[in-house]
Amino acid sequence: MSLPTHVRLVEVGPRDGLQNEAQPISVTDKVRLVDDLTDAGVAYIEVGSFVSPKWVPQMAGSAEVFAHIRQQPGITYAALAPNLRGFEDALAAGVKEVAVFAAASEAFSQRNINCSISDSLQRFVPIMDAARQHGVRVRGYISCVLGCPYEGQVSAEQVAPIARELRDMGCYEVSLGDTIGTGTPGATRRLFEVVGAQVPRAELAGHFHDTYGQALANVYASLLEGINVFDSSVAGLGGCPYAKGASGNVASEDLLYMLQGLGIETGIDLDRLIAAGQRISAVLGRTSGARVARARSGQ
Amino acid sequence: MSLPTHVRLVEVGPRDGLQNEAQPISVTDKVRLVDDLTDAGVAYIEVGSFVSPKWVPQMAGSAEVFAHIRQQPGITYAALAPNLRGFEDALAAGVKEVAVFAAASEAFSQRNINCSISDSLQRFVPIMDAARQHGVRVRGYISCVLGCPYEGQVSAEQVAPIARELRDMGCYEVSLGDTIGTGTPGATRRLFEVVGAQVPRAELAGHFHDTYGQALANVYASLLEGINVFDSSVAGLGGCPYAKGASGNVASEDLLYMLQGLGIETGIDLDRLIAAGQRISAVLGRTSGARVARARSGQ
Repeated sequence: MSLPTHVRLVEVGPRDGLQNEAQPISVTDKVRLVDDLTDAGVAYIEVGSFVSPKWVPQMAGSAEVFAHIRQQPGITYAALAPNLRGFEDALAAGVKEVAVFAAASEAFSQRNINCSISDSLQRFVPIMDAARQHGVRVRGYISCVLGCPYEGQVSAEQVAPIARELRDMGCYEVSLGDTIGTGTPGATRRLFEVVGAQVPRAELAGHFHDTYGQALANVYASLLEGINVFDSSVAGLGGCPYAKGASGNVASEDLLYMLQGLGIETGIDLDRLIAAGQRISAVLGRTSGARVARARSGQ
Repeated sequence: MSLPTHVRLVEVGPRDGLQNEAQPISVTDKVRLVDDLTDAGVAYIEVGSFVSPKWVPQMAGSAEVFAHIRQQPGITYAALAPNLRGFEDALAAGVKEVAVFAAASEAFSQRNINCSISDSLQRFVPIMDAARQHGVRVRGYISCVLGCPYEGQVSAEQVAPIARELRDMGCYEVSLGDTIGTGTPGATRRLFEVVGAQVPRAELAGHFHDTYGQALANVYASLLEGINVFDSSVAGLGGCPYAKGASGNVASEDLLYMLQGLGIETGIDLDRLIAAGQRISAVLGRTSGARVARARSGQ
């Protein structure tokens, strides 16, 4: 079973990470984080979210962040666009790639985005149309693919048709998210086998949370299934390891360390990535959630 | 590639774990920990070490601990015996299984046990003789199998002859330890391939530290190589996640959670194991190092 030779890391720290930190940070600090990630060689950065600051105060100022970051050629700077209004705001901010967000569980969809899975997919139709018209690429997320906080287990068979529909709508890639981190490697492999029968594996990504410590084992299981795009969050942003109910994305540093050990190319400089994570952790007044960062610095 | 249906966890928290905690704990608390582990269904518990308290004060009172624990039939209660004197003390305490300890790197052997690898193996000869005479089983450890703090990378070819020699001496099982936690899944698989050519895989165990967050990915890689015995430490004892240079064993709870997710039997009750870890963590005045325990308790 041969592993991919190259993996693309989708850095979600500035969006999925900071969105789930209790403490909102300034536009200046966000810009610095994105610039640091650019300098580390990260090829894809999810910079912000065009959503009402009433709902997600941490994401206020995303347009300003886009206006001030140094955008390097060849690097993707993306934003979450939960609806057409958000898409239009993203477009006005010059965003060239957006992400849309569905759930694999009805209960989570209802509680998280206040509509059924089917309705949420319908809401994406005008976004997809507008995106096509403006040459904007759209990435799809599906959350709760291996478990739901309200429904418990989620089967791969629930996920597959949603992934298929996102792809049929025009998403060039669908990221499967283990939002609550309860997945284990066998379930992860089965997920990619079942969903991979509906959507080519080259168009699927893995998005693992480390709540139960399983994220890297799940990434390794995914690599064995031929998946070569993974979402991760620098410094483990989004789940302070010392906070109640910590549930962060896998730390980019820990993931990169594993990939380097496996001889897989990413184009990212680990030392610079660690430095980027240390800086934003200092802004948040805490230690990095990346074990590699803590081991290297003796923290 | 089929996974083992059953795995034996070797619980090293009371020895390898507590030995590496800054704060020594009382005999009463150690006895309670071992009894809690017995009640959780752990089949193998490394209870203590018969070593001079001058060198390892945390292990003082191991004979007393053995005298007071509730020993259930069918469960192995083992002790580390670094030399013949230690072995005799263990024997006097009624210990039926001991472990001996070598290193895969010369520099680590010199600094950790003050002799060459070859000399350390020679020191085991009288222990093995005495063990045979008294019907005591001996388990072998090799440390630094995937990296050394002084020499850097360690090759599988360095490990294989040491494992072979321990087996030839009479060790019924050899546990390969990634003492500094720098190993990644590809190197882990290669290690078991190369060592497995010298010692049957059924007589090898994996011992992973989570310093760089790689432990569970390495366990999963080992399972794929047919390894079905793993050392772990309840509550991640031995590496406080908040302490400088944290470098603990993988937490038994996180490992068990993964194995349960994979449908692999261990005979251990996860809830009781978590409770055992919470209790000893409270004694140490800190939060459990097991992510599963923190996720379950919302800490």
